[in-house]
Amino acid sequence: MRQAGKIGPLEGFYIGDVTRQASARITVATPGQGFSDITEAVAAFVAESGLRTGLVSVFCRHTSASLTIQENADPDVRVDLMTALDGFAPRHGQYVHGMEGPDDMPAHIRTMLTDSGLTVPVRDGRLALGTWQGIYLIEHRDRGPPARDRAPRCRAMIQNPVA
Amino acid sequence: MRQAGKIGPLEGFYIGDVTRQASARITVATPGQGFSDITEAVAAFVAESGLRTGLVSVFCRHTSASLTIQENADPDVRVDLMTALDGFAPRHGQYVHGMEGPDDMPAHIRTMLTDSGLTVPVRDGRLALGTWQGIYLIEHRDRGPPARDRAPRCRAMIQNPVA
Amino acid sequence: MRQAGKIGPLEGFYIGDVTRQASARITVATPGQGFSDITEAVAAFVAESGLRTGLVSVFCRHTSASLTIQENADPDVRVDLMTALDGFAPRHGQYVHGMEGPDDMPAHIRTMLTDSGLTVPVRDGRLALGTWQGIYLIEHRDRGPPARDRAPRCRAMIQNPVA
Repeated sequence: MRQAGKIGPLEGFYIGDVTRQASARITVATPGQGFSDITEAVAAFVAESGLRTGLVSVFCRHTSASLTIQENADPDVRVDLMTALDGFAPRHGQYVHGMEGPDDMPAHIRTMLTDSGLTVPVRDGRLALGTWQGIYLIEHRDRGPPARDRAPRCRAMIQNPVA
Repeated sequence: MRQAGKIGPLEGFYIGDVTRQASARITVATPGQGFSDITEAVAAFVAESGLRTGLVSVFCRHTSASLTIQENADPDVRVDLMTALDGFAPRHGQYVHGMEGPDDMPAHIRTMLTDSGLTVPVRDGRLALGTWQGIYLIEHRDRGPPARDRAPRCRAMIQNPVA
Repeated sequence: MRQAGKIGPLEGFYIGDVTRQASARITVATPGQGFSDITEAVAAFVAESGLRTGLVSVFCRHTSASLTIQENADPDVRVDLMTALDGFAPRHGQYVHGMEGPDDMPAHIRTMLTDSGLTVPVRDGRLALGTWQGIYLIEHRDRGPPARDRAPRCRAMIQNPVA
């Protein structure tokens, strides 16, 4: 059965001013391929800003790591997600771009399939995520960023354009 | 032929104030796997807000449903999109996470490949979508959200951070 | 090894006013399937706006072209990315929707897997991209947009909701 859903009326309508914005860097030191839950770090940034309502954007400044919003309950979900990414872009596929190692080109493909940036609503000073949603940084490389990127190890930048 | 395009000059440049924002919940009751066109509901929210220029963000608070912007003309497009998603994350694949049924883990993978959030420009009080673009919620589960999520059935949250 | 990363403290915290926004159209005339680097055009828009801090959103008004942030150094990366997209949505797959030619339905699938919109932080009047990140429009069709879309050839719209 492939059916369209029934759409209800608008609920909880809110309107207010926009006056302030904030930004900060979050650094994630990744030891290798895997998911890092950055939800608390993003929530801490929102709390630090003092802003109550708006949107928070998270942006990853690399092309071999990316972001996703995923289930935060059963860690097996991340195992299966990584297996799926391995299937979409295998480590030992036939790539033209190989000079940075066998884990680099699959990392770019996995980044293309997931997200470089995410935007999440903020209500009453809290991330308006669903109960089972967490914000994850996915490191796609075996050893995290190469030496040249390690110095400014920042992995995510946040902007909250609203007050 | 894989060629880069020719980029023209900036057109229709606009600059103005940002003063207001609005948000609301949109509830979509999904009977099972499928695409629901929520374009009109998002447009109605923009109209209700009275805001004329800015960005509207739509966010889905689930990890087994997601958002996409797709062709709104031929319904066969959605049939093929669902077939493609079935291929990327089959119902009866070998998943470690199986406790929530055979449609749960593929739903998470499909959500990762599509979008939890979308941001669309608003001009003159209207969504600045292309002629053939519609905003869709994709329900990936066979019966929609399980009982625990049905109470606050909201599926999308909108923020318009600009006036 | 699939390990979570170590998250450091917030760095470079900034807070300030939001007062202004700007938007403009960027036109990309695409001769056929391929990646077009639009980073400079987006940066030129930000410079034209005079806005120093905030977020810039880029939106593609088509469902057979899309956006991605990818490595801007080795052009072979884009070759491999296109090969990957060809694998995910082959030109001569068995699609129900075929009336617009063999390159149309795969274009929609590739658009679903990549992005219709991107949001990038702006600091000190510059795009806060990583060193190796570029913003790309991906044309998925053999000859670019069909005649009916060519008139308003705009391919990307930008909104900068912050000052």
